[in-house]
Amino acid sequence: MNIQALLKAKGERLLTNRPEDTLEAAAQLLSHNNIGALPVRDSEGRLVGMVSERDIVRRLAELGGKALSLKVGDAMTRDVSTCSPLDSVKSVMETMRRRHIRHVPVVDGGALVGIISQRDVLHSLLEQTQLEVNVLRDVLIAKG
Amino acid sequence: MNIQALLKAKGERLLTNRPEDTLEAAAQLLSHNNIGALPVRDSEGRLVGMVSERDIVRRLAELGGKALSLKVGDAMTRDVSTCSPLDSVKSVMETMRRRHIRHVPVVDGGALVGIISQRDVLHSLLEQTQLEVNVLRDVLIAKG
Repeated sequence: MNIQALLKAKGERLLTNRPEDTLEAAAQLLSHNNIGALPVRDSEGRLVGMVSERDIVRRLAELGGKALSLKVGDAMTRDVSTCSPLDSVKSVMETMRRRHIRHVPVVDGGALVGIISQRDVLHSLLEQTQLEVNVLRDVLIAKG
Repeated sequence: MNIQALLKAKGERLLTNRPEDTLEAAAQLLSHNNIGALPVRDSEGRLVGMVSERDIVRRLAELGGKALSLKVGDAMTRDVSTCSPLDSVKSVMETMRRRHIRHVPVVDGGALVGIISQRDVLHSLLEQTQLEVNVLRDVLIAKG
């Protein structure tokens, strides 16, 4: 299975932030939509970073209440691993595991088209592998 | 595989919070340890709730900077699903999926003994299922 199929199955609206938004606005967008991370796009639509619940909690721990007026552009993670819609779900899982990240934006020809979470990836791989187990079991039973 | 085996494999120190701690202190503990949620214990060691990055971000979205001086006991999730060390990893995954939660505290005879994350559970199940696929493949090859 590839990332495109997984995105299609999720079928969610893509929410994003701007670098000039405040961390308080980012916290509200995350909270109201019950999500863990948001891609950050500049005025030309280019992906420039990611801002997550973890980034917000880290800045709070460092700065206290002042963290809320920080700009997303000053608190986000800039060094973002992305994937292509044609990448395999397995390769994205490996990237997440290696880099200890929970969200990977999906970029197609320079444009941001979605975001994939660790939960999406692990559930999909688990379903796929369980299907494989069932097929192999059936073949074994047929062979007697 | 059961939860006890998974906890043993993780081998991490159990971090907790007190209901009388502030959300700011909870944010610091989460951030310094790079974790997403903490069990909350009262002075007698009983599990009384969980406080997560998500709880903190939700309170920030509602209250702004004032959220930091809230007590953990007033911001935590009280209705916590727990599991036993003898529960199967699969049953805990089902609980997480059904209740949309990412962390489940492990309780043994009334005492808190650990915490299991969705990532722990999904990685473990994936490994287990992949092993099963390999075994079935070998059996099929042996049968010719």
